[in-house]
Amino acid sequence: MKKAVVLVSGGLDSATVLAMAVREGWRCHALSVDYGQRHRSELDAAAAVALRLGAAEHRIVRVDLGAFGGSALTDTSIAVPTAPSSGIPVTYVPARNTILLSLALAYAEVVEADAILTGANAVDYSGYPDCRPQYLAAFEAMANLATRRAVEGHPIAVRSPIVSFTKADIVRRGHELGVDFSLTVSCYDADGQGRACGRCDACRLRRDGFAAAGIPDPTRYRPAAGP
Amino acid sequence: MKKAVVLVSGGLDSATVLAMAVREGWRCHALSVDYGQRHRSELDAAAAVALRLGAAEHRIVRVDLGAFGGSALTDTSIAVPTAPSSGIPVTYVPARNTILLSLALAYAEVVEADAILTGANAVDYSGYPDCRPQYLAAFEAMANLATRRAVEGHPIAVRSPIVSFTKADIVRRGHELGVDFSLTVSCYDADGQGRACGRCDACRLRRDGFAAAGIPDPTRYRPAAGP
Repeated sequence: MKKAVVLVSGGLDSATVLAMAVREGWRCHALSVDYGQRHRSELDAAAAVALRLGAAEHRIVRVDLGAFGGSALTDTSIAVPTAPSSGIPVTYVPARNTILLSLALAYAEVVEADAILTGANAVDYSGYPDCRPQYLAAFEAMANLATRRAVEGHPIAVRSPIVSFTKADIVRRGHELGVDFSLTVSCYDADGQGRACGRCDACRLRRDGFAAAGIPDPTRYRPAAGP
Repeated sequence: MKKAVVLVSGGLDSATVLAMAVREGWRCHALSVDYGQRHRSELDAAAAVALRLGAAEHRIVRVDLGAFGGSALTDTSIAVPTAPSSGIPVTYVPARNTILLSLALAYAEVVEADAILTGANAVDYSGYPDCRPQYLAAFEAMANLATRRAVEGHPIAVRSPIVSFTKADIVRRGHELGVDFSLTVSCYDADGQGRACGRCDACRLRRDGFAAAGIPDPTRYRPAAGP
């Protein structure tokens, strides 16, 4: 049975990736990274998603990216924007995907996985450089020079099966696979119970995705914000 | 003034790299990673080295690689070998340099550094795949697709100025630059005060390096082991 490390953030995209991988017969080792996010509800969501979708195991690794600052997602002195912005948003976390994939690479070597799967997406998050296909290909090339396992003849694939999906495509695919999206948290500013603000970029994209897919939005919003 | 993030482990190699960079006029941001090493003395040594050699600042970031296991350096159930071995040694830590460089990349983006400098060395540690020049080049290529700063026209260089040095070359270069090697800890099994075992691979390489360079070895050994 082929094994994959699947980066599971607690959001909608990586939940769909995990469901796709399980359906395709991969033994999935789910990995979440506690990198100093503003709230724990994402990690709680990740654990619930991994359990419900049938991951073989789920690990959470802590790394304190807040020590560097530089992002609204890890630095509480930078506000999460509630209006659309142009260019790379302040919610960009320096080198985040590189760090997440590096940790996945370590985990993959220990469990002897053949692939690392992520929910990186170049369509809706085109502002993030580390979500593009050429970035993932460069990471894979580097990874295949980096580890004992790769050097000894077991290459690793680094893929996002949804990299070119629209948010509506992701919602539709997850829905077909029976993903319970009410478990997932996408909001950049969710409260302690994982209820969404309904106003940030991530909330907007998610809501528009459900609307475009014609699938009811099960997101739990905070009373004040409303869907 | 050009800025560099310098990975400082507390060992002899990265101390020499930091001294070289300071001498060349780089403003150096030293970074050490607490990845669940067996002992804290390496990190204490890193702080002493960074301070003494004139780093502009020194940060320690914690990431719990012990959660994955798989190495004698992070898993106390695997013994540190005291005899030479062939192939990649059990002291290899899965994806270690990739994780260290990824954290350096995040720090580099926040401080707007132009380079990441490491003490990776392909001569004495040829058993470690992530110390080879082709690996460092692949990491650099990936890094230049990964970050906002790179995408906006500020590429990052990823280099080890000692990658092809012998241990004796490193000792000589550090000595010329006035590095106080008594501050550094190379031993895989040092005690709480940073005193070396004198028997592991790292101790042997280090002692042989001083001997080959014709420079007195200032390493503090534990009484029982002796140099």
